[in-house]
Amino acid sequence: MAEEDIDTLIDSPLPEEEGQLDDENRLKPAFVDAVRDAIEDGDETRAYDLVEPLHPADIADLLELLERDERRQLAAAITDLMTGEVIAELNDYVRDDMIEALPPEVVAEIAEQLDTDDAVQMLEDLEPEDQAAVLAEMEPEDRAAIESALSYPEETAGRLMQRELVAVPEHLTVGDLIDYLRDNDGLPTEFWEVFVVDHTHRPVGTCALSWILRCPRHIALADVMKRDQTLIPVSMDQEEVALRFQKYALISAAVVDEAGRLVGQLTVDDIVHIISEEAGEDTLLLSGAGDGDINEPIRDAFSARVRWLIANLGTALIASFIIWAFGAAIEKLVALAVLMPIVASIGGNAGTQTMAVTVRAIATNQLTRSNTRRILWREIRVALLNSMTVATMIGIATAIFFTPMLGVVIALAVVINILTAGIAGVAVPVLFDRMEQDPAVASSVFVTMITDSMGFFAFLGLAAAFGLAG
Amino acid sequence: MAEEDIDTLIDSPLPEEEGQLDDENRLKPAFVDAVRDAIEDGDETRAYDLVEPLHPADIADLLELLERDERRQLAAAITDLMTGEVIAELNDYVRDDMIEALPPEVVAEIAEQLDTDDAVQMLEDLEPEDQAAVLAEMEPEDRAAIESALSYPEETAGRLMQRELVAVPEHLTVGDLIDYLRDNDGLPTEFWEVFVVDHTHRPVGTCALSWILRCPRHIALADVMKRDQTLIPVSMDQEEVALRFQKYALISAAVVDEAGRLVGQLTVDDIVHIISEEAGEDTLLLSGAGDGDINEPIRDAFSARVRWLIANLGTALIASFIIWAFGAAIEKLVALAVLMPIVASIGGNAGTQTMAVTVRAIATNQLTRSNTRRILWREIRVALLNSMTVATMIGIATAIFFTPMLGVVIALAVVINILTAGIAGVAVPVLFDRMEQDPAVASSVFVTMITDSMGFFAFLGLAAAFGLAG
Repeated sequence: MAEEDIDTLIDSPLPEEEGQLDDENRLKPAFVDAVRDAIEDGDETRAYDLVEPLHPADIADLLELLERDERRQLAAAITDLMTGEVIAELNDYVRDDMIEALPPEVVAEIAEQLDTDDAVQMLEDLEPEDQAAVLAEMEPEDRAAIESALSYPEETAGRLMQRELVAVPEHLTVGDLIDYLRDNDGLPTEFWEVFVVDHTHRPVGTCALSWILRCPRHIALADVMKRDQTLIPVSMDQEEVALRFQKYALISAAVVDEAGRLVGQLTVDDIVHIISEEAGEDTLLLSGAGDGDINEPIRDAFSARVRWLIANLGTALIASFIIWAFGAAIEKLVALAVLMPIVASIGGNAGTQTMAVTVRAIATNQLTRSNTRRILWREIRVALLNSMTVATMIGIATAIFFTPMLGVVIALAVVINILTAGIAGVAVPVLFDRMEQDPAVASSVFVTMITDSMGFFAFLGLAAAFGLAG
Repeated sequence: MAEEDIDTLIDSPLPEEEGQLDDENRLKPAFVDAVRDAIEDGDETRAYDLVEPLHPADIADLLELLERDERRQLAAAITDLMTGEVIAELNDYVRDDMIEALPPEVVAEIAEQLDTDDAVQMLEDLEPEDQAAVLAEMEPEDRAAIESALSYPEETAGRLMQRELVAVPEHLTVGDLIDYLRDNDGLPTEFWEVFVVDHTHRPVGTCALSWILRCPRHIALADVMKRDQTLIPVSMDQEEVALRFQKYALISAAVVDEAGRLVGQLTVDDIVHIISEEAGEDTLLLSGAGDGDINEPIRDAFSARVRWLIANLGTALIASFIIWAFGAAIEKLVALAVLMPIVASIGGNAGTQTMAVTVRAIATNQLTRSNTRRILWREIRVALLNSMTVATMIGIATAIFFTPMLGVVIALAVVINILTAGIAGVAVPVLFDRMEQDPAVASSVFVTMITDSMGFFAFLGLAAAFGLAG
């Protein structure tokens, strides 16, 4: 910041804090364009002044909105605003892209500002040699914490946890604890619960800070703490962790190693991202879009998606084979070719509906072996109602425009295919789940294959059986 | 609990705490069956003993897994375990169903145990006369709080907030605050932040409890508190609230009325359900499955889903009309009928992939006017790569099994349709969003209509243009 700032301020006054965000808390396009123009003009001071009033999460959003080159130029212009908080809020792909452009000592410096969990997130996707170069630049203590976190598999509690926490022995009183908190500088500044441990460092209870604040000093911690707590093993998958936090409405939770010793904590603000990711992921997986992140490199998006398009090609070929078997009938009655996609399409749609409901119910632990039969029966009844309605409509329309007999055939085929779709929509994801596979990943391909094939087969087969193309 | 308990305990010892849940923290089917058997045998004591060791969230899960009649019988057997916590954890539909079976005075008693937000959630979906009957049975103070919450529209911060909070004037010191917290019995037992307000009850800052605990008593609150806080207006939509909590990593937040006065607070444990719901909702909406809850009454599931099947019927008719226009060509070359669904199906799949990515990016505020053009261009490039790969495969296969010319035609049609799908997959949800409509609701119908129609039109049209069916 130099003297020329003053002129810049007069020329382009800083927008009001509320002026940068729209009603839905997104950065206004006009603001983003102003930053873009400043970067293009090479006016780093103007860019800095525009960005400076933003919250770190909004700076992260701004970087994500920009194109790759603009992003790097802006980062260079606002180096002292590029705090750990901004880095932690960045989309994974954008962060990796920016980190790669920085020298190892700068990355090390940023990593040291961060909590272990955020530092790990920043470093885990780097190439091994880049990671080693960054770690070599770090203080031994920080390096050890990060190396230890990286030793746990990705997407487990061990990777996500913070090592910074407050753990105290159970013989303390409330007053002792408050004195300890006031006198120790090395403690984290923000925490929500105090963990009480025995002499082997195993958690025996947890105290919400509000209980401590509301008790007189002489009360023993052992009398205030909640003994019944949710302990998270280091090796627990993050999806499982997210479900526990939701189910038991946790704010923080102790993470324990194989021996049951307290090794870290998870706090809900880190878990909300995972809850949102895991729930949103099903939309993307069901559609065959892989990670489906708009900041994912194009080659990754291509390889994630093309495999599902090829799988779809395979299932479409099966459907084509069925049509080919009825080629003679179609030659005689071209109306069959005109109407057959309707039966397949309606079945596909009904199957997708049931499958989405089933996949969500499995993901939220609402559908288990105990109620599978009830849900299957429920979906069959919904399918019956749906198919009666739709079959009546298409049957009457076909009877009017073609022949009454063709109307009967298409109506029957629609009923058969919607029922098939209802059963497949429950059965396919449930079977994947029982085989310990993620039901969102491959269910679509199988359900579509079943509804497409059954759609063409039922319609063309019934038409042949009824002698319509004889 | 009577003397016969002792015999029951000898016959069927209580399972270990860990014995009721499987590895993924779901109730074991064997345990659920044991409870079912006890209910069927009319053995209320055995049912009670089985359920008693469970966490309230697991009792709620158990009730959800049972069928309607079993559920009500179990509830009658475990009345004193049916705490507010259990009721608050229940699925909306299951809760409504159970509440309807209870007399108003019992519902009122349960509601009085709950925090305002949970009580409101329990009562908001009751029929107006049932709701009035319950409110009439409640203590005037609780009734007033609930009536005031119900006066806000559904799914807004006003409905979700808790009125119970800790608010103090800014002239206090840390010591004053601790004394106030120790001496006042009327305060909530669990809270995570203290709100500091001015004399008009407008929030001026917020203190995390950990800061208070780490400061000496003489420090002024005004020097500890964070002035820059996220205030949530009572009328804010819950989806927006969830995004703020995620973006700014909030644990709790002050809710303010139109005049800016503090009227309640939201805590993250209530918001995680909404984050998960809103993110999972897109999966269901995109598939046209409405709320898609496995506990939703069948008539509701039917009416939510059948409308999308009927819409799909409409779009399928458009596709049929296109096929009908090329009826003469199909009559001459039945291979066209055999192959045409492949082109439509691949296009539909590619469109769904892009649409899912776009819808998630819009929902998470990552796709705004500032980067729409960049994302559209990105999707076009992915579509080009995908379509080249898939078109080559199907083109060669068709050239071998049919004719080289038909291979060229289908390859071209696939390229055209995947590109169309990529553009429509971005454009349709973005346009819905700009018209202030939820892009997840109706995008599927339009994208499918576009890819189906374009698939048939491009393939049959090119075949006709190349003189293949001449």
